[in-house]
Amino acid sequence: MQPSLDSLRNILEADCLLTDSDSLSQYGKDWTNQYTPAPLAIALPKTTEQVAAIVQWANKHSVALVPSGGRTGLSGGAVAEHGELVIALDKMNQVIAFESATQQVKCQAGVITEQLQQFAEENDLYYPVDFASSGSSQIGGNIATNAGGIKVIRYGLTRDWIMGLTVVTGKGEVLELNAGLIKNATGYDLRHLFIGSEGTLGIVTEATIKLTRQPKNLTVLLLAIPQLDKVKELLNTFQKEVDLTAFEFFSEEALLKVMPHHNLPRPVETEAPFYCLLEFDATSDDILENALGCFESGLEQEFILDGVMSQSQQQAAELWKYREYISETISSRRPYKNDISVTPDKVSEFLGRVNNIVAEHYPEFEVIWFGHIGDGNLHLNILAPDDMDYAEFVKACENVNPLIFEVLRELGGSISAEHGVGLLKKPYLNYTRTEAEINYMKGIKAAFDPNNIMNPGKLF
Amino acid sequence: MQPSLDSLRNILEADCLLTDSDSLSQYGKDWTNQYTPAPLAIALPKTTEQVAAIVQWANKHSVALVPSGGRTGLSGGAVAEHGELVIALDKMNQVIAFESATQQVKCQAGVITEQLQQFAEENDLYYPVDFASSGSSQIGGNIATNAGGIKVIRYGLTRDWIMGLTVVTGKGEVLELNAGLIKNATGYDLRHLFIGSEGTLGIVTEATIKLTRQPKNLTVLLLAIPQLDKVKELLNTFQKEVDLTAFEFFSEEALLKVMPHHNLPRPVETEAPFYCLLEFDATSDDILENALGCFESGLEQEFILDGVMSQSQQQAAELWKYREYISETISSRRPYKNDISVTPDKVSEFLGRVNNIVAEHYPEFEVIWFGHIGDGNLHLNILAPDDMDYAEFVKACENVNPLIFEVLRELGGSISAEHGVGLLKKPYLNYTRTEAEINYMKGIKAAFDPNNIMNPGKLF
Repeated sequence: MQPSLDSLRNILEADCLLTDSDSLSQYGKDWTNQYTPAPLAIALPKTTEQVAAIVQWANKHSVALVPSGGRTGLSGGAVAEHGELVIALDKMNQVIAFESATQQVKCQAGVITEQLQQFAEENDLYYPVDFASSGSSQIGGNIATNAGGIKVIRYGLTRDWIMGLTVVTGKGEVLELNAGLIKNATGYDLRHLFIGSEGTLGIVTEATIKLTRQPKNLTVLLLAIPQLDKVKELLNTFQKEVDLTAFEFFSEEALLKVMPHHNLPRPVETEAPFYCLLEFDATSDDILENALGCFESGLEQEFILDGVMSQSQQQAAELWKYREYISETISSRRPYKNDISVTPDKVSEFLGRVNNIVAEHYPEFEVIWFGHIGDGNLHLNILAPDDMDYAEFVKACENVNPLIFEVLRELGGSISAEHGVGLLKKPYLNYTRTEAEINYMKGIKAAFDPNNIMNPGKLF
Repeated sequence: MQPSLDSLRNILEADCLLTDSDSLSQYGKDWTNQYTPAPLAIALPKTTEQVAAIVQWANKHSVALVPSGGRTGLSGGAVAEHGELVIALDKMNQVIAFESATQQVKCQAGVITEQLQQFAEENDLYYPVDFASSGSSQIGGNIATNAGGIKVIRYGLTRDWIMGLTVVTGKGEVLELNAGLIKNATGYDLRHLFIGSEGTLGIVTEATIKLTRQPKNLTVLLLAIPQLDKVKELLNTFQKEVDLTAFEFFSEEALLKVMPHHNLPRPVETEAPFYCLLEFDATSDDILENALGCFESGLEQEFILDGVMSQSQQQAAELWKYREYISETISSRRPYKNDISVTPDKVSEFLGRVNNIVAEHYPEFEVIWFGHIGDGNLHLNILAPDDMDYAEFVKACENVNPLIFEVLRELGGSISAEHGVGLLKKPYLNYTRTEAEINYMKGIKAAFDPNNIMNPGKLF
């Protein structure tokens, strides 16, 4: 039986509770796009107090809640397929305060990532967490998944920029966690518990976020690499001398897709199995010289075959295209995606073993590798043969997953580097987390959400 | 009734279970030095498995456990005054593994901070968490209190360097948390929950720690400041241009103690109420010029009265003495210490209000201010008049605490910036954490330590 929404109308204004089928369909899913949305209704609260009132209402009426940000997730964490009430933060999209002495900005959780990046820029500062979905993803969602992206090697994850949170717990209580303090040694840091909890403990409604100095003269090196096991030396050599702001990679197979699709020339003369894109702040001539020294030493020691360095901001942007266009280029082929990580020293072994697994079981599948190799984060994209039924293809990939994840377990890796667990990775959580860990997680969940109304069925 | 230690002897070698009165007294207290140690015995395990066996033994026999590192804490977190079994990690003091490609070192929790710093140096790297007790404090204790220190403004807290933990929970289960992954979005990050938990959830036995590039050409600016409310402008001006590695302050009163005690001359000609010590990597002439530009602009705008910049490593070390010698200089006066924090923009208001409180209630007390002002972290040291009974003095200071902490609550500050809560700050926890937060903390504790054997009575 569906609960009556009447009493909810006392909490929300009329235009803040949506039940039309378009809204239900739009708000009931994320970018994962393989689940059928079927929420009860969509609540669009305007204040933390309204969120708390909704959670209290949901406890009273035993209604499951799905917190919803920009719904750009790729693991089904924001999917509502079982009559849940979706709480979307779209109307909580304001910057609340900014303090230049601390470089901290307080904003509502519905602020779009790009909006925060622009706010920082207007104040001659920089918000460095950046990824493909920055134009749609919301800060609250970034926090709930501890979003990473392309600048992690220098600037860390979302976690590293969150100085305070306002959350509503699964009990409907409002907590102000840390409120911008740099040092605060007074018990368990519940802020860090909420970061990455995928809406299963409560809802983030506001965040205090640290900004930083803008990078200057960002310079890109695009390098051709003879074998992936040389990446370890490459990383080692550069990290000793240069603060890298990005260290990305992609395979020749990826390049061969991007070049014709975007009418781009080969970036370096030499053809190679892999390419690395390195970025750094060339704030002084010394740094440029250090980077060039590393490059030359790499050529001599043959862990670099060839390379090009940007001479202008425009050329840097041109070089980034080879990496940034990959996802969009192959999207029409509906790749089966796995977002996985190992420690950077094990990337080569992992990739080799996965290639062997796929070649053995599905020699007709194409494998496209790219990702944030400096973080050990690989995006494994498997493409179906043109004539294969898509459902059959997905099933085949799911059959391969346990083999890949077994290798990950052996190497101490993670089945989800930055996309979260949600629904999609839930069956595989035990490859990365032990039964004991999952039991402790459930114990924590019970303390914050005793009636299990917060995003039930996600994560575990 | 004291439990029998016989069955414990099956777990530990004979020389790893101490019951002599010297050991009980030595291991039963930390630097807080105002509690009477009375532990049951001291266990010195050599492996994680032994730690787990001890915790299981303690659960079975209802024995309270006190985890013990270097016991340099200042809040009584490692005190055993009620017949607890102390688990000291002294014999787990080895570096286990080092991987240069990831710059990660795995070590046992009993490794001394300085030992890790030296290990980093031997590998041309740097472990940047540093504080007065680095020569005695252990990594496990640093993690349990999320230790901070003098480099936080650039390098963050202990939390920011921990890539993985091995812990034994209060149930006696061994968990491997994260194991060095940079990106791992698979549920609650229990690693961050253990960091700063003061041994109340379990015991850290091993840690994987990230190292970084060594700083080059560290340069110190010592500046005389006309009023503390100018610090905001000072911080603002420098942070826009220079990556500061330290931003410390001390009062004229502190300087007046240090100079005669260590036979040091006045560092700058101009006498001022406050002094700031700034440090940065002068890796290029550009950076030096930027810093000098900030200095000159400060003189012009009169938020700096006078200053001196180090011209050599030796001179930099000389200038640090004015800040570093304060604690030791006043130690013979047995100061009543409060380690507190606010956001850096509120430091001036906070300090002014505390000075007024002390002046109003105890005009005969001396107040010595110093600390990590760039982090908003102030060390408030109150000195008794020479002729005052010490117990009476402590009581007087405790009477003032609620007034100071009320101001902290109003300004959103913390009653313990980096010393933890332990026993000493427990009565005041509710000034920084709400009742709801404390209840959630207790819920988490119950999940990890259902029999309440881990450091009971500490924190809450």
